Amino acid sequence: MAAEIVNPGSASGTESAPGDSGEPFDPAFALHRGGKMAVQATVPVRNKDDLSLAYTPGVAKVCTAIAEKPELVHDYTWKSQVVAVVTDGTAVLGLGDIGPEASLPVMEGKAILFKQFGGVDAVPIALATTDTDEIVDTVVRLAPSFGGVNLEDISAPRCFEIERKLQERLDIPVFHDDQHGTAVVTLAALRNAAKLTGRGLGDLRAVISGAGAAGVAIAKFLLEAGLGDVAVADRKGIVSRDRDDLTPVKRELAEITNRAGLSGSLETALAGADVFIGVSGGTVPEPAVASMAPGAFVFAMANPNPEVHPDVAHKYASVVATGRSDYPNQINNVLAFPGIFAGALQVRASRITEGMKIAAANALADVVGDALAPDYVIPSPFDERVAPAVTAAVAAAARAEGVARR
Amino acid sequence: MAAEIVNPGSASGTESAPGDSGEPFDPAFALHRGGKMAVQATVPVRNKDDLSLAYTPGVAKVCTAIAEKPELVHDYTWKSQVVAVVTDGTAVLGLGDIGPEASLPVMEGKAILFKQFGGVDAVPIALATTDTDEIVDTVVRLAPSFGGVNLEDISAPRCFEIERKLQERLDIPVFHDDQHGTAVVTLAALRNAAKLTGRGLGDLRAVISGAGAAGVAIAKFLLEAGLGDVAVADRKGIVSRDRDDLTPVKRELAEITNRAGLSGSLETALAGADVFIGVSGGTVPEPAVASMAPGAFVFAMANPNPEVHPDVAHKYASVVATGRSDYPNQINNVLAFPGIFAGALQVRASRITEGMKIAAANALADVVGDALAPDYVIPSPFDERVAPAVTAAVAAAARAEGVARR
Repeated sequence: MAAEIVNPGSASGTESAPGDSGEPFDPAFALHRGGKMAVQATVPVRNKDDLSLAYTPGVAKVCTAIAEKPELVHDYTWKSQVVAVVTDGTAVLGLGDIGPEASLPVMEGKAILFKQFGGVDAVPIALATTDTDEIVDTVVRLAPSFGGVNLEDISAPRCFEIERKLQERLDIPVFHDDQHGTAVVTLAALRNAAKLTGRGLGDLRAVISGAGAAGVAIAKFLLEAGLGDVAVADRKGIVSRDRDDLTPVKRELAEITNRAGLSGSLETALAGADVFIGVSGGTVPEPAVASMAPGAFVFAMANPNPEVHPDVAHKYASVVATGRSDYPNQINNVLAFPGIFAGALQVRASRITEGMKIAAANALADVVGDALAPDYVIPSPFDERVAPAVTAAVAAAARAEGVARR
Repeated sequence: MAAEIVNPGSASGTESAPGDSGEPFDPAFALHRGGKMAVQATVPVRNKDDLSLAYTPGVAKVCTAIAEKPELVHDYTWKSQVVAVVTDGTAVLGLGDIGPEASLPVMEGKAILFKQFGGVDAVPIALATTDTDEIVDTVVRLAPSFGGVNLEDISAPRCFEIERKLQERLDIPVFHDDQHGTAVVTLAALRNAAKLTGRGLGDLRAVISGAGAAGVAIAKFLLEAGLGDVAVADRKGIVSRDRDDLTPVKRELAEITNRAGLSGSLETALAGADVFIGVSGGTVPEPAVASMAPGAFVFAMANPNPEVHPDVAHKYASVVATGRSDYPNQINNVLAFPGIFAGALQVRASRITEGMKIAAANALADVVGDALAPDYVIPSPFDERVAPAVTAAVAAAARAEGVARR
C-alpha cells in the first residue's frame, strides 16, 4: 500500500517557529525554510544543440568511453568532486538518536560547509536504518556515484566498525569526521601550544575526558603523532587494563594508552597532567584543573558548555581552547574536513591515511605562523588560507604515501 | 583491505576524446569534463553569525523541532525539493547493461534536466547492485533524504517489480520514467492527433512494437485513457493469450490488451490498425505501414533510427512523430518528468497516481492549443509553457485524488 497521508496542510505558510510551544519568530527557522542547498547545472541546457551534447545523443559516447575505461568516470562526471555525507541520525550534535529526518538540517549544514570552505560538492544521505551491516551494504552500493564518504553523527561503538568495514570494501576515502576531523584540529592546536611553550609532543602527558568517537580517535591520533602519554576516561573512570567492564574498542584503547598505568577517576589522571582534552560534555571540578602540571593546556571542547569554563581554566593553564566561537582558540572541525576531502579528491586518493591526517594537522598549525600566541594557537574557520593549505598538504601526502591515482 | 590503485595518472590533462582509438577532439567529451552539475548553498555562510544559524548551535533547534514533529522535515530541509535519480546501469539508453559508473553521465544529464525544466533538484544515484531486493532495500534506506525517486534505465522485467515494491514501502513518489514519462508524452501526442483528425480515443486501435518498460507502460496507460484497443508485439510477435512463452508481465499484458484476439506477427497486427507506436528499435517494412487504416498515426520513437523512417511514414500516415529532435513532433520525456515531479513535490504527494499522469498528458496536449497541425501535435521541449502547465495540472490532480499532503 502507498503512503498514509499525515497531517495535511501542516506548517506550510507560517514563518514562525513550529510546534505547540507558541515560540516567537526565530531566525534559525526562517533561515532553514526550504532547506539550505540546491543543485545547479554547470553546463548550458538552453536549446536543442545543448541538449544533444549534455544528454542524448551526445552523452552516449561518453557513457561508452567510461564502460570501456572505467577510470574515465573521474574525468567526465562529477564523481570526483562529490562526497556523500552519510548518517543514521543516532548521535546528532548533543541531541543523541533523533533519527534520519531530524538529522537532515545538520547534514545539509555539513554539505554547504564542504562547498563553502573546500569547494567540494556534498550530498546529505540520512539512512533509514541503524543496523551496522545494512549501513555498510547501503553505502557500498551508493559508492559508484561518489568520490568520497563522510560519515557523520553515527553513535559509538558502531561508528568504528562501520568505518572500518567501508574502508575495507571501498576504493574511495571513507572518513568519520566526528573522529578524525576532531583529532586533526586538536593535534594542530596542541602542536602550536607545545611550540609556544617550548615543549615537544613527546614531553606531554594528556588526559582525554570522553571515550566516544572523538575521544577514541584523538587518543590514537595523538599517540601516532608522538605524544608522550595519553589516558582516556569514560564515565566510570580511567580506561585501564585492570577494568573488566570494557567494550572491545575500549579494551583496545587500554592496551595502547595509559602507559603510566593509572587507574581510578578522571581527577586522579589529571593530577600532574600537561594536557586536558574534553570531548565528554561533563564538568571537571576546579581543584582537578588546579592539580595539573604548571603551564598546562586545557582544551574543553564540549558545546555549548565546556567541561572547564575558560575563566576557570585561565587561572591554571597556559593555553585554553574550546569548541565555542565566542572564545579564542575554537577547535572547529570545519578547519579540517573541507581541505582533507578537497586534497584527497584532487589526487583521487583511494583512502585517507594517517600520514594525510598528520599532514593536515601540520598545515593547519602552520597557518598560525609567527602570530602564535596563547589566544591564537589555531586559525579562525574564516581564515581563507586554511583550506588551500590543508588541501595542498593532504594531496602531497597522498602522493607520498602511494594512495593517489593522479 | 583498502583500495588497489588503478592506473595512476590516467586521462587527466587531455582534452581530446579518451581511449586508444585516436579519436579527434569531441565537443561532447569537452562538455562533460568535470561533470555537468554542482551543489550550491542557498543561505550565506560568510561569517560566525551565519555559521551559528545554518550550523551549530542554531541548527539544533531545527533538528529538535523535526524530531518532535516529523512532517516539519518538508519545511526546513531540501527534502521536498530533491529527487533521487536511481539506476543500476542495466538498460542505459540503447547501450544496455553498461554498469553504474558508465551510466552516470546520463543520470547527471537527467538531473540537470530536472533542474532546468522543472526547478527540481536531483541527485544521481548509480547503484553497485543489480539484485532486485537489494535495490529496493537500498532505496528504502535512502528515502528519508529525498522527496521523490525517479527510477531510470533499469532493465525489464526487474524494473516493474522494483517500482511496485518501492511504491508499496515508501510514502514518497516513485516513478520509473522510462515507463511512465514515455507513456504520458505518447498519450498527449495521441490525444492531439485524434483531435486533429476528428476521432475519439475509443475509435482507435493501436499496435505497439516493443514489450519492454516503455511498451508495457504505454499499453496499460493508453487503455486506461480509453483507447479502443491496443496490441503489443515483442520479437516473437503479438503478445496474445495463446502464447506459452510469456513472462509474468507479458502474460498480464495478454489479459488486458489485444481485445481483437489477434495472433501472429507485428505485420498481422498492423493491417488496418489506426496507430503504430514503436519503442523497439526494430524496422517495420513499408508494406506493413501501407496496410494500416487510412489516416493512421505513426509514432516511431526508436533513437537514433526510427522503426519507420518519417519520409516513408508520411506516405501513408496523417500524423508522424519520432523521438528525434531534428523532425517535427518529438516525443521527448523531458516534456513530462520535470513537471510531474515538480507538481507532486509542490503538494508533497505521497505517490503519483494514474489520475496525475492523465492530468499531465492532458495539460501537455493542451499547450499546443489552436496551433494544432499534423506537424505540431506535441510542444517543443523548450516551450516555456510546458513545465508550469504540467506542474499545475499534476498538483491539482494530486489534491483531487487525495494524495496531497499540503
